[in-house]
Amino acid sequence: MPIDASPHARTDPLAATLATIVGARHVLAEPDLVAPYAVDWTNRWTGRPRLVVRPGSTDEVAAVVAACAQAGAAMVPQGGNTGLVGGAVPRRDEVVISLRRLDRIEPVDQDAAQLVAGAGATLADAQRHARALGLDVPIDFAARDGATIGGIVATNAGGERVLRYGTTRAHVAGLEVVLADGSVVRRMSGLAKDSAGFDIASLLVGSEGTLGIVTAVRLGLVPHLTERAAALLAVDDTRTAVGVVAEVRRRRDDLEAAELFHAEGLDLVCGTLGLARPFQRDHPTYLLVECAGRVDPTEGLAAVLADIDGIAEAAVAADGPRRAALWRYREAHSEAINTAGVPVKLDVAVPVRDLARFEDDVRGVVDATAPGARLVIFGHLAEGNLHVNLLGAADRAEVVTDAVLELVAAFGGSIGAEHGVGQAKVRWLPLTRTREELAAMNAVKRALDPRWLLNPGVVLPIPQGAPES
Amino acid sequence: MPIDASPHARTDPLAATLATIVGARHVLAEPDLVAPYAVDWTNRWTGRPRLVVRPGSTDEVAAVVAACAQAGAAMVPQGGNTGLVGGAVPRRDEVVISLRRLDRIEPVDQDAAQLVAGAGATLADAQRHARALGLDVPIDFAARDGATIGGIVATNAGGERVLRYGTTRAHVAGLEVVLADGSVVRRMSGLAKDSAGFDIASLLVGSEGTLGIVTAVRLGLVPHLTERAAALLAVDDTRTAVGVVAEVRRRRDDLEAAELFHAEGLDLVCGTLGLARPFQRDHPTYLLVECAGRVDPTEGLAAVLADIDGIAEAAVAADGPRRAALWRYREAHSEAINTAGVPVKLDVAVPVRDLARFEDDVRGVVDATAPGARLVIFGHLAEGNLHVNLLGAADRAEVVTDAVLELVAAFGGSIGAEHGVGQAKVRWLPLTRTREELAAMNAVKRALDPRWLLNPGVVLPIPQGAPES
Repeated sequence: MPIDASPHARTDPLAATLATIVGARHVLAEPDLVAPYAVDWTNRWTGRPRLVVRPGSTDEVAAVVAACAQAGAAMVPQGGNTGLVGGAVPRRDEVVISLRRLDRIEPVDQDAAQLVAGAGATLADAQRHARALGLDVPIDFAARDGATIGGIVATNAGGERVLRYGTTRAHVAGLEVVLADGSVVRRMSGLAKDSAGFDIASLLVGSEGTLGIVTAVRLGLVPHLTERAAALLAVDDTRTAVGVVAEVRRRRDDLEAAELFHAEGLDLVCGTLGLARPFQRDHPTYLLVECAGRVDPTEGLAAVLADIDGIAEAAVAADGPRRAALWRYREAHSEAINTAGVPVKLDVAVPVRDLARFEDDVRGVVDATAPGARLVIFGHLAEGNLHVNLLGAADRAEVVTDAVLELVAAFGGSIGAEHGVGQAKVRWLPLTRTREELAAMNAVKRALDPRWLLNPGVVLPIPQGAPES
Repeated sequence: MPIDASPHARTDPLAATLATIVGARHVLAEPDLVAPYAVDWTNRWTGRPRLVVRPGSTDEVAAVVAACAQAGAAMVPQGGNTGLVGGAVPRRDEVVISLRRLDRIEPVDQDAAQLVAGAGATLADAQRHARALGLDVPIDFAARDGATIGGIVATNAGGERVLRYGTTRAHVAGLEVVLADGSVVRRMSGLAKDSAGFDIASLLVGSEGTLGIVTAVRLGLVPHLTERAAALLAVDDTRTAVGVVAEVRRRRDDLEAAELFHAEGLDLVCGTLGLARPFQRDHPTYLLVECAGRVDPTEGLAAVLADIDGIAEAAVAADGPRRAALWRYREAHSEAINTAGVPVKLDVAVPVRDLARFEDDVRGVVDATAPGARLVIFGHLAEGNLHVNLLGAADRAEVVTDAVLELVAAFGGSIGAEHGVGQAKVRWLPLTRTREELAAMNAVKRALDPRWLLNPGVVLPIPQGAPES
């Protein structure tokens, strides 16, 4: 008996329609089959989808969207389901459209240094294709094996190389999107200059599936810089770390990453995952920097670091297992936190010049609103982007989130720096977006999805009153 | 008697309202006063504005827009009026809102490597401010002394450094915009990561004043690379030039510009402006490349060029008057063409791999549709961006434009690569934008400017039927 022959699918007329588009085995309705699509990997967001549909081509996505629109069914696009704000998880009765089967990567366009990938291809796959030809995807982060290219574009993903290359938006050279009515907008020529008309693609990047469903992406690539050196530095505090990074940047133009974490995070990572401690002594704050280029930067980086004040201990590693081991301390943070419990997770940014002061204030605010909670702060120093994680504060999630995000707003910061808004942060968006900005966003949403069928409740609140369906 | 005391201004009730906002001397109505605002510098686009208003602050722009909206008056925002597609020139009875008085540049934010400039500051001014502190604006082009920061953003300007840094959109770290109803949207924190909500700013960039009026910009800066070397290369054809540039890029990562021109352009520049010829022999095609870095690239560039096949003659110049002289051959093209007559101007892009074939085809198409016209093609090779200029073809402008832009569409190219659509190319936009894309653009336009008051007739055609005013 085929796995799809569920009674739910048979009784929902939309399921039958969708089965004629994608084949019955790609329409899932039974609870145990839809379960992996209905919860995020941190177990914080879960919902009950009406159906899960797994189209295998852009045409199928377009037909699925048209059929859902026809039926007035809300849709949640989903890629690798590695998001952290519940933006790809169903709330209640939506059709989850999984893009994972759109995983084709076309041969790399070496002339243009671009790569065309289906929305469902993973970041790691795209990196492998590019690197085989001496090129690289300018985006990288720990969830590379699960995160999909479509999801990266839908969320304007950041990661560890933003310092050098910027966020995903800067590298979207072409985009194919299915709009709310099932129409397909495709711009894939990969032109470096094309100012003929509004840049709808830029608007779609980072819109978290609320304005359209990304089906394919033409990504700009950068040279694959194989000569790398990482250094883990122990410092007294974030203020010192900011100064060290500024000094490294003044002296070297090959800095690619500057990652910050603290004793609490290192303790958790080592304790939970059994990693050996990096230094004999413990330190309050750690900084992981990486340089990359065409010639081995190890000696040059070591020399620069030796010359900078404020570094208590340093471990410099050329490319290889030692470098990977240094990165593991940083990249294992999310996994360790999630292993330890269900965290309150905030992803914020403030101007770098205010980073240390902001962090001090966050510690104060958390002490006041969630005393006893375990606070783990880490992030991307050069962008002023901190991941604020709290363990043991689930029952005070609202109040502590209120307090921290109000602080963010007071610093002119972002309440969703690289993870986006999802369903998690909708309530707080007005803290950093004015009435006029929200009005413009709502106007754009109404223009492209007047019935509010695409990922309703993500980014913007669902408007009061009945939709125009 | 003050220059503004014109009878027109006194009889138009809107003029009186605007005078209460900006002061009477900044509302112009007399033909000789409005004339400089009513025609572009190439004398191809001219109109009769209802009024010209010169607000001096963002608040004044907002109040002016609100008053015009109240009166149902169409508006044309104007910066330096250096555009090439009539996008900032009134058509008939619009209020021209000149942003030139908003020319303040704030002290450079050195921590963030960003600069905040009013819309009316010139590119050259912004460059001067940045360079004084070892930083630079990543955008540069010949009209730098007149072009304004607001105009650069409104048109997503390209120029000579896109090869290295991308177009303007990639460098807009913050934006202040007045929307069609006079509301002000301001995001100026300059965060490197801020994925909280739709990126309305990215949508505004390149929308040519049709979705909002840019009043201030926070621009990302790059290190000022003072060590420069330019080389003018003579080659047999565009095919060879494309190969030479690819080879230079393989061997050096400091290439910043790769500009293409031909014998016709050089003849015109030397003949019209009296420049000495660069080489003793004449050649069919010329390529100007420039490298820039922290150490003098002159010797390294010369060595690489000596090693590349296909270069007939080369003149390499380190920074200084000789380098400026080499650039003059390229940058004087527009001026020389405009001195010689009223040209038909097309600004197109195709994938670089097709550039030579496309250029061959363009020559054939022009021979067929405008025989005897003087064809001058030049442009930015690495982006496949050609400026196609025709002298002596004004009476065949439509037919030759049709033919060339249809060819562009067949190559998957852009009909407005870096100059935009303006009023000049509206008719041809559907050649490279699908019905679905145009529908999305129109929906966005209606969402943000439902009465079609901002720069009507630019980018998109004015819809049939009465606006919702």
